[in-house]
Amino acid sequence: MREDVIGRANVEDTPELEAYYKELEQFEAGALWTVANKIEPWQPKSQSVPVLWRYKDLREHVLRSVDLVTPEKAGRRVIYLNNPGRRDVSAAVGWLYSGLQVMNPGEVASAHAHSASALRFIMEGSGAYTIVDGHKMTLGARDFVLTPNGTWHEHGVEASGSPCIWQDGLDIPFVNAIEANFYAVHPKIQQDDSGLPIDDMTKTWGNPGLRPATGKWSKGYSPMFKYEWEPTYESLNKYAKATDGSPFDGILMNYVNPVTGGHVMQTIGASMQMLRPGEKTKSHRHTGSFIYQVAKGSGYSIIDGKRFNWQERDIFCVPSWAWHEHGNDSNTEDACLFTFNDLPVIEGLGFYREEAYGDNAGHQAVAA
Amino acid sequence: MREDVIGRANVEDTPELEAYYKELEQFEAGALWTVANKIEPWQPKSQSVPVLWRYKDLREHVLRSVDLVTPEKAGRRVIYLNNPGRRDVSAAVGWLYSGLQVMNPGEVASAHAHSASALRFIMEGSGAYTIVDGHKMTLGARDFVLTPNGTWHEHGVEASGSPCIWQDGLDIPFVNAIEANFYAVHPKIQQDDSGLPIDDMTKTWGNPGLRPATGKWSKGYSPMFKYEWEPTYESLNKYAKATDGSPFDGILMNYVNPVTGGHVMQTIGASMQMLRPGEKTKSHRHTGSFIYQVAKGSGYSIIDGKRFNWQERDIFCVPSWAWHEHGNDSNTEDACLFTFNDLPVIEGLGFYREEAYGDNAGHQAVAA
Amino acid sequence: MREDVIGRANVEDTPELEAYYKELEQFEAGALWTVANKIEPWQPKSQSVPVLWRYKDLREHVLRSVDLVTPEKAGRRVIYLNNPGRRDVSAAVGWLYSGLQVMNPGEVASAHAHSASALRFIMEGSGAYTIVDGHKMTLGARDFVLTPNGTWHEHGVEASGSPCIWQDGLDIPFVNAIEANFYAVHPKIQQDDSGLPIDDMTKTWGNPGLRPATGKWSKGYSPMFKYEWEPTYESLNKYAKATDGSPFDGILMNYVNPVTGGHVMQTIGASMQMLRPGEKTKSHRHTGSFIYQVAKGSGYSIIDGKRFNWQERDIFCVPSWAWHEHGNDSNTEDACLFTFNDLPVIEGLGFYREEAYGDNAGHQAVAA
Amino acid sequence: MREDVIGRANVEDTPELEAYYKELEQFEAGALWTVANKIEPWQPKSQSVPVLWRYKDLREHVLRSVDLVTPEKAGRRVIYLNNPGRRDVSAAVGWLYSGLQVMNPGEVASAHAHSASALRFIMEGSGAYTIVDGHKMTLGARDFVLTPNGTWHEHGVEASGSPCIWQDGLDIPFVNAIEANFYAVHPKIQQDDSGLPIDDMTKTWGNPGLRPATGKWSKGYSPMFKYEWEPTYESLNKYAKATDGSPFDGILMNYVNPVTGGHVMQTIGASMQMLRPGEKTKSHRHTGSFIYQVAKGSGYSIIDGKRFNWQERDIFCVPSWAWHEHGNDSNTEDACLFTFNDLPVIEGLGFYREEAYGDNAGHQAVAA
Repeated sequence: MREDVIGRANVEDTPELEAYYKELEQFEAGALWTVANKIEPWQPKSQSVPVLWRYKDLREHVLRSVDLVTPEKAGRRVIYLNNPGRRDVSAAVGWLYSGLQVMNPGEVASAHAHSASALRFIMEGSGAYTIVDGHKMTLGARDFVLTPNGTWHEHGVEASGSPCIWQDGLDIPFVNAIEANFYAVHPKIQQDDSGLPIDDMTKTWGNPGLRPATGKWSKGYSPMFKYEWEPTYESLNKYAKATDGSPFDGILMNYVNPVTGGHVMQTIGASMQMLRPGEKTKSHRHTGSFIYQVAKGSGYSIIDGKRFNWQERDIFCVPSWAWHEHGNDSNTEDACLFTFNDLPVIEGLGFYREEAYGDNAGHQAVAA
Repeated sequence: MREDVIGRANVEDTPELEAYYKELEQFEAGALWTVANKIEPWQPKSQSVPVLWRYKDLREHVLRSVDLVTPEKAGRRVIYLNNPGRRDVSAAVGWLYSGLQVMNPGEVASAHAHSASALRFIMEGSGAYTIVDGHKMTLGARDFVLTPNGTWHEHGVEASGSPCIWQDGLDIPFVNAIEANFYAVHPKIQQDDSGLPIDDMTKTWGNPGLRPATGKWSKGYSPMFKYEWEPTYESLNKYAKATDGSPFDGILMNYVNPVTGGHVMQTIGASMQMLRPGEKTKSHRHTGSFIYQVAKGSGYSIIDGKRFNWQERDIFCVPSWAWHEHGNDSNTEDACLFTFNDLPVIEGLGFYREEAYGDNAGHQAVAA
Repeated sequence: MREDVIGRANVEDTPELEAYYKELEQFEAGALWTVANKIEPWQPKSQSVPVLWRYKDLREHVLRSVDLVTPEKAGRRVIYLNNPGRRDVSAAVGWLYSGLQVMNPGEVASAHAHSASALRFIMEGSGAYTIVDGHKMTLGARDFVLTPNGTWHEHGVEASGSPCIWQDGLDIPFVNAIEANFYAVHPKIQQDDSGLPIDDMTKTWGNPGLRPATGKWSKGYSPMFKYEWEPTYESLNKYAKATDGSPFDGILMNYVNPVTGGHVMQTIGASMQMLRPGEKTKSHRHTGSFIYQVAKGSGYSIIDGKRFNWQERDIFCVPSWAWHEHGNDSNTEDACLFTFNDLPVIEGLGFYREEAYGDNAGHQAVAA
Repeated sequence: MREDVIGRANVEDTPELEAYYKELEQFEAGALWTVANKIEPWQPKSQSVPVLWRYKDLREHVLRSVDLVTPEKAGRRVIYLNNPGRRDVSAAVGWLYSGLQVMNPGEVASAHAHSASALRFIMEGSGAYTIVDGHKMTLGARDFVLTPNGTWHEHGVEASGSPCIWQDGLDIPFVNAIEANFYAVHPKIQQDDSGLPIDDMTKTWGNPGLRPATGKWSKGYSPMFKYEWEPTYESLNKYAKATDGSPFDGILMNYVNPVTGGHVMQTIGASMQMLRPGEKTKSHRHTGSFIYQVAKGSGYSIIDGKRFNWQERDIFCVPSWAWHEHGNDSNTEDACLFTFNDLPVIEGLGFYREEAYGDNAGHQAVAA
């Protein structure tokens, strides 16, 4: 790790120094110059690698878990996404966990709470619901729902529904890393019926430019627990008429906490973006780890020089500081990408940095 | 002003004291005990009186102004609401100004800017528009639009439209009172065409739970300059399904700045409320001055013991600390009240206080 | 009030119009163009006039009040400063009240609370104290103490002390104007002994760059109720070594809420400034109303072209948007000015505006 | 990792399941129930172990580095503290790095900038200084200085000084973990002389209850770059007269950003605490990782049942969720502990949790 640059460590090993290093070890210490260049890199180099998880590959395995394990034994039947560079922490990218969960009609998972923040993005099936701190929400395809840090939550599928699959997203690896994760099973296994109207939080907080006059909310996460697909897609279309969009992301909107205008949870942000028919964005890179699910359409992303072709419900990741650009394959239909990420951590702690790809009119060369 | 209460002034005039008071006057001074009880009242007593302005009374006078004065001579053709207790400052209630403005098809007002914050609530006509700092907005009945402190703004009616009437609301009296009012006519009389899409700010910022990822906004007022009636009414109906409502206000929602979740402007707040069929609210009083316009339906309000029956487009005011309750006359139709007020000042400076009417099951006795 | 300028009202009275105006009066309404130019001035013109209150003039009258009225009858023995332009609201300038209060050894005023925010700046005497919500503070000359909006507070002078005089500053006129003033006498007339250590709030919160780890404070005003003269004067001297100072104000520091870094109270700000030996500042003007007390030294201020020579403990005011500059008469001693003002209102609501005096190297011509 | 508890994973391996797991691996996926209990622990179990680094052990090794390597080759001569549980990331505890740095009179390190935030706590020697973005600060024993995220900074010792040793504290491991670390050497190797007064930021911002009126500061870290020992110790003594202190920490004050009242930097907090003569605190545990240096006196800490006796300048760590209590050995002298920690991360992201030790009157049993 020696570097011949002013201000960097460049010390040759000698027998005297090696003896010195040995002595230091006895006192649980070391010489900084032996590790300085490693721990102070010139720029981030992610341990994660870009991966595309194809829904057609995973779907059958997800469904097969229903036959292989009972919900009682498994807790939840989930196939998680295991980034080759992050197997030690079971992360899909960076410090973010993601998995595909399946539930059959009539099943109910036990209620629990944890310090990790969670979200679900519904992929298929009918009759799914989530109950967060007594607020029950019905869920359809492409709906996005929060189960924030510290809330009691449980999932289920109505007996009248069909098998449901959704993507889970959590910051479990991060919360473990900062050694702050607590877990609890609900003392009654299920939450009591709260008597609250179905979808009350979305009806109360999910209105454009309007807020309940008497409603107070000071928790660190959005009170609008569910963000439905239909108004989201309408919003993208409206916004598309008022903006040229971002050269890197097309029409990109963040899901927000309507009380603050900020991220939906304290550690996980989420957004939905639309690539207009034929749109091919330019490349940029930035800090922060991102997981995408294709909500609509088909296309490709080029990530650090590698091309990934995607279709509806495929999932892929973009590691921190990786170059990336996206393209919509269709010239007539838009394509939509759902994303969740660790931007609240990165931005909130002062680490966001971004760079445009300058060469080749902003487009990466793709490895053969 | 003497009061025989411990801690209050209770000094009798004597020749010696009167001579003393005279001497103090020479030094631009006075004895506090001669005014203390007056300037430290036990509770607020508004100078404003409750007033109902009936649209049927005012409409013909507003329209007549078109024949009486030219826009060039008058600046704007506006009939302002002159509270009997506030004629010295031309206020409708407290420190809030309000007036009804008329404009004919093809007319354009000159662009100007002022330190006062302004809003408009459209009452009738088609083809009206407002341009705020280059952002053009089309306006229909019951739309609510902002022209905040310091922005260049101008109003007009398309040649293809019909005569338009709207209510203006401003904090002119307040800004004069705190001696901070500046006024400027646009150097080119009209703003240049900015080339921005029509209604771009509402399309960009007026979405439920979503925000442009790349949009930054740090001004003291909402970037969502226009709040349209239709989504507002939908929101009230959605929220009504998720709440019991307020005993004093029924279904009450504030128009908010989507970036902060707070008031739309720094000195004027606004809200829309729905009284459900047959709903009769209880009385309360609070600090802050309020002007109402009936956006829909008919009913009554009882203000400090006096009953005011109102119909669509009527306007009335509730002074600070006045008891008030509202009722919807219809058992089948809802009634909606648009309101603007000085709550950002009252709340922001720490002066909000509220009290429920305890007697008579919460209902005031009405003076014969 | 007619003005021959595009965008301004310029309507001649006619018999027809005068009849129309009469009709409008019946409906509590008026024609805007008859008042528009008055209520929309080009720039602020304060109702207050600059005044200098000399301590040598007022002191004997203040002391005489002790003989003329009892504290029981007067409530408090205070000579208030009555600006010739603001006699209707008993204000010293703008919406700020100020007075000189005297108390003899052994006297105790009754405890009360009000919506107005108050401060005291001690002028002479020993043994004075204030108790705010159970926190007792000892007070010496030039100490500055807060009695914020809504707190129970009482003043007294220890039996072992000497007659004490201090300046009171309050926003009573403002709180009355916005119709939000409540007043209450303490149910037991005096606060119970809280057992808290003397000066605990200053010891806890008045430390440079340090805060109690376990202390929480979320009220709208500073928990550091007392700001002592000695550390204030030291701070000015330290800061003077690190800055060139302001061309308009020399070495100017704001008293702040240590929790937020912002103003000490929600409606009144305060500062202390040092004019270095021989320093003569340039003129500027800004929105906001200011009352000054000369804490140390002697000099002059030029306010809207009029010169006021001041000495220690003199008081003067600068109205909103009035040109002003200051000079220290001494070439060897510094001069210090204590100020309080309505900047939290002006800044907090978005109305602060400032302008440098451009002519004559920044110095006003003084009227003969 | 199986657990026989409702809501936890409890699946036995079978040949069929093992085959299934193999298949999932091909798709960079896994079955959640094979790792769920591991990644969702009931409570945090830190990878770090409590360690005490004795200054008498380390000092000679630190000084020896001066003979062993040149500053040019080593970059900086630092012995870093290497927690046995965190050797993979060179952390002293959690994600915090710490080391002891030595510099001889006349030496100057090259200027650089990095995304990691840094601090120094001076241990011995005279003539040390740090320059942060052009602001030069002189440093004496127990002074605490910031070199925040993104600032150009360099260290040196005046030729007239003596060899200086200080403790460095950084969040390098954390910034690497979140893949956001950038490093740059100053283009001119040293910063240009800015002409700013020495210690200007402390003179400007380090005043009790006062702030420069014209100073603006909106960066994420404190503008008061240096916190001197003397006023810090005075503050602790003042605060001690106004509080009973914390049962767990005695007299504990946080170093704060005077603009916000919050932590000094966005990722690292710091505090100084005083254990009064004879004080023995009770045990508690909380999330967050802490490094202590004994600034004054001697005593002990019991951390997860193990006793560590410490003297001036010793360093020790308390891992996240470890029980800990402290004792001052002297009945006549106070003891002071300097601490830095990751509380801005833990609190800012919503992960702070605390628990008092309930047994044995709040005191841990100590392992023999």
